Amino acid sequence: MSAPPQLSVVGLGPGFAGWVTPEARALIEAASDLVGYAPYLARCPQRPGQLRHASDNRVELERARLALELAADGRRVAVVSGGDPGVFAMAAAVFEALEDGPPAWRALDIHVSPGVSAMQAAAARLGAPLGGDFCAISLSDNLKPWATIERRLRAAAEGDFVIALYNPASKTRRRQIFDAFALLRGLKSGDTPTAFARNVGRVDESLSVETLASANPGAADMSTLVLIGSSETRLIERPGGAPYVLTPRRARVSA
Amino acid sequence: MSAPPQLSVVGLGPGFAGWVTPEARALIEAASDLVGYAPYLARCPQRPGQLRHASDNRVELERARLALELAADGRRVAVVSGGDPGVFAMAAAVFEALEDGPPAWRALDIHVSPGVSAMQAAAARLGAPLGGDFCAISLSDNLKPWATIERRLRAAAEGDFVIALYNPASKTRRRQIFDAFALLRGLKSGDTPTAFARNVGRVDESLSVETLASANPGAADMSTLVLIGSSETRLIERPGGAPYVLTPRRARVSA
Repeated sequence: MSAPPQLSVVGLGPGFAGWVTPEARALIEAASDLVGYAPYLARCPQRPGQLRHASDNRVELERARLALELAADGRRVAVVSGGDPGVFAMAAAVFEALEDGPPAWRALDIHVSPGVSAMQAAAARLGAPLGGDFCAISLSDNLKPWATIERRLRAAAEGDFVIALYNPASKTRRRQIFDAFALLRGLKSGDTPTAFARNVGRVDESLSVETLASANPGAADMSTLVLIGSSETRLIERPGGAPYVLTPRRARVSA
Repeated sequence: MSAPPQLSVVGLGPGFAGWVTPEARALIEAASDLVGYAPYLARCPQRPGQLRHASDNRVELERARLALELAADGRRVAVVSGGDPGVFAMAAAVFEALEDGPPAWRALDIHVSPGVSAMQAAAARLGAPLGGDFCAISLSDNLKPWATIERRLRAAAEGDFVIALYNPASKTRRRQIFDAFALLRGLKSGDTPTAFARNVGRVDESLSVETLASANPGAADMSTLVLIGSSETRLIERPGGAPYVLTPRRARVSA
């Protein structure tokens, strides 16, 4: 890498070191300042002289502003995110802060570095559930009305997409995944393969493959990625292991 | 890594070496046999004694069967794919071949290794276009009827998703992207930000940001990823560069 960017937004992937890209590693190494949610900063190697600005998970916009201020002050800043920063992570917060910030911030050299998102890690472990067209929906209604989420769940069923649900629940947000399952159960076949992938790539990784009818929405927490199949998605049984989940590339004629 | 898997399905990302994960590199290094589309194999370092089985782009299922046969014969095989093998790439073909193949294949130790997909690379270069809910649709009707694709495009508009279009065109498949734009122009606002990202991460990378009304569908080819915004997607102008594309995390009340 030549001179590091003034501000980078870096994705560490889901937690396994083998999924951290060389670019992400180099940007973190080159930064004078790391900004991020504390557990993500803990995944970055310590380097003498490098400053760390750890924050709580709920303050994305404050964290983004701090990073932009530091960069405008001449620091070389890496905003450290889990997964892919572009997928329900820090990239949008940085550009929201940029949009509302001082015009000078727009002249900063900003570099977003993509990473492996939770949906992709879950899919890799399950087989090939994303082999057909798919959508990704965050169930968090902290920043958007529940009516918007319902509208998207309905559209996802109508389009027969494979559905990846991010942020299905948190300690204080328990109802949404139950409501989402209730809605989807009314629109999709009960035998649709449905997987819960928790902490994929970490030591406490767990996977379960059920059907839309049998899955317990209460099993999802903030570390869970939920995948719900299309009408084409099916299981491949195998000896000595959970079945693979396959959405074939070939689709039948639609209704 | 301990003993390499009998069969791995590995994603090289979009083309930039900094986006190839350490896991992908290690799996390729450890394999006795590499199987893949010739241009992807050309991106793997040569290793003495390692066999290469290059094939044409159109024969995914044959390629998958060859890889499974080699693995069943005791070879350590890596199927090399561009992008993320789980996203419109080789993982589905491998599990389709597995499903229809000899039962013994199901006892193989198979490992899918995720990678950076074209949509993520394009998003990283553009800013944060995937900051809200999104969907990914392949416009290739080689394996699914056009009616299914139309149904998904309609649903994507109805759900106000950001839309990533893979495989918008090929040398012999030119009509689909025009039909898709005609359909979406009837359902979405003409000023919706629309980006064409070509060969992101390669030396001949190019990006253009237009509106749904002004973009020329004929500019898309087989190396182009097309991103069409939601109603929330907007541009952030900046000095000396193309505008950033932002889909904010915060969404308004839906209709």
